[in-house]
Amino acid sequence: MAAKSKILVLGGTGHLGKFIVKASTEAGHPTFVLVRENTVSNPEKSKLIDTFKASGATLLYGDISDHESLVKALKEVDVVISAVGGEQIDDQVKLIAAIKQAGNIKRFLPSEFGLDPDRHNAVEPVISYLEGKAKIRRTIEAEEIPYTYVCSNAFAGYWVSTLGQENVTAPPRDKVVILGDGNVEGVFVTEEDVGTYTIKAVEDPRTLNKNLYLRPPANFLTFNQLVSLWENKIKSTLEKVYILEEQLLKLIQESPFPSNFTLALGHSLWVKGDCSNFEIEPSFGVEGSKLYPEVNYTTVDDYLNAFV
Amino acid sequence: MAAKSKILVLGGTGHLGKFIVKASTEAGHPTFVLVRENTVSNPEKSKLIDTFKASGATLLYGDISDHESLVKALKEVDVVISAVGGEQIDDQVKLIAAIKQAGNIKRFLPSEFGLDPDRHNAVEPVISYLEGKAKIRRTIEAEEIPYTYVCSNAFAGYWVSTLGQENVTAPPRDKVVILGDGNVEGVFVTEEDVGTYTIKAVEDPRTLNKNLYLRPPANFLTFNQLVSLWENKIKSTLEKVYILEEQLLKLIQESPFPSNFTLALGHSLWVKGDCSNFEIEPSFGVEGSKLYPEVNYTTVDDYLNAFV
Repeated sequence: MAAKSKILVLGGTGHLGKFIVKASTEAGHPTFVLVRENTVSNPEKSKLIDTFKASGATLLYGDISDHESLVKALKEVDVVISAVGGEQIDDQVKLIAAIKQAGNIKRFLPSEFGLDPDRHNAVEPVISYLEGKAKIRRTIEAEEIPYTYVCSNAFAGYWVSTLGQENVTAPPRDKVVILGDGNVEGVFVTEEDVGTYTIKAVEDPRTLNKNLYLRPPANFLTFNQLVSLWENKIKSTLEKVYILEEQLLKLIQESPFPSNFTLALGHSLWVKGDCSNFEIEPSFGVEGSKLYPEVNYTTVDDYLNAFV
Repeated sequence: MAAKSKILVLGGTGHLGKFIVKASTEAGHPTFVLVRENTVSNPEKSKLIDTFKASGATLLYGDISDHESLVKALKEVDVVISAVGGEQIDDQVKLIAAIKQAGNIKRFLPSEFGLDPDRHNAVEPVISYLEGKAKIRRTIEAEEIPYTYVCSNAFAGYWVSTLGQENVTAPPRDKVVILGDGNVEGVFVTEEDVGTYTIKAVEDPRTLNKNLYLRPPANFLTFNQLVSLWENKIKSTLEKVYILEEQLLKLIQESPFPSNFTLALGHSLWVKGDCSNFEIEPSFGVEGSKLYPEVNYTTVDDYLNAFV
């Protein structure tokens, strides 16, 4: 059996990145995490970095803007996974240039992990954001770098743990604001499962130059179903405030950044149903829970139990 | 008396931009609004554009990425005000290149209208965002383009009208989430007043190559004062949930984009007090309500009355 691919993770200390690092070390991949030197001085991040080291990951100091350090790090590995944040999407052109120069990378997974930037019905400012991701896709393809784009849909750790409410760390027990009429299906995947599926995909020929969609069948839920599931668990009824599409569009139009962004993301998800409103054709994509039925993914139902 | 400067506004149909266009036409400036052709097909924007036309503004079709159309538009005017959204900050390098080529612009006001990107204590991802704005400043200065940077602090139309809560269009009447201990002062300015002060500044020699801070004295309020002002108006007490700094930093760290952005902005504002925690030195800045005492700005107190 061939040796496990060596994996470099950028954005490894972020919301999703830490789960990618965890999945990578747990699957036995030699794992390298690129961090900026000043990251270590952040107490929260520093704790995380200790966990990485304890799990056998190797820390490399560098930055997406430091071409030399980047090329050097890339030469050590086979696979690159970028989990950089939304504000660094465009910067990935620098990573692509370094991958091109290093010349040895067998698979690149850019920072996607959300909706498919080529298939959505979003409004601004999410259009511009997804256009940024699409532009990175087109650059990768033009440079003929082998890729997988992971469209992991809605993070459970954000949408389920808060029922999409802001500034809270648990699902609400009194009132919930529902975007749209609550009857459109979203697809939810825990960040831990996104990490697991992503690592499964890195050396799989079936995901080469394809979109990997994560649509675990038990996790298709409408906003109303999500709220109702929670209400059943806490044996209590929440006050529901609906923001229907017309009002939502007005709110997006009238809100400053980044509120308009959060709302427009909700619009794409909860009004347009962009997680699941198209068929995955073999020409462009594969689905994770079908490719890897051995993954015992976390259901939304189970996930919510932790908050009861 | 010299003729009024001709003003070109980019981002004129956005959250703030429409108030800049309004202030510009009301002050008698020949006003030009650059819009993308597809903007007109958006029903909300199209209504706004009709209002612009009715007020005497001239619509120009173009795009920040279309160098030729941009240079052509710039040659018609004296002053350029960019109010492009948060996701287009970096794109302003294209505008700067066009201003440089046009060669006739007497004042450029880039899209700022918030905290001072050179003076703040924000955490990521707001650091990267403000670094983007700072980079635009440095490019303007390197190109020796005459500028004014408007640091207008917190938009009343966002922070006051919702008391900083998400997904609502009016201040809450039941519960409010307070970031920090509620004892740090923010500074609030209505979008309409930001427009008024901005237009006052465009041909004022006192604001040339300076930061124009908006700190109307009646509008310094802590989060607790803001809530209490509202409670007095509705004669009712709200349930208060405090998210103290340590928990807030953890929440920022654990939230995906753009939630982490919204929270980090709140952290800078409500924990660090970045609206007013430094003195405005004459070497770099001037203050709007002092320069233009004739502006009868809207107080937070008055502003809240509209929601009672």
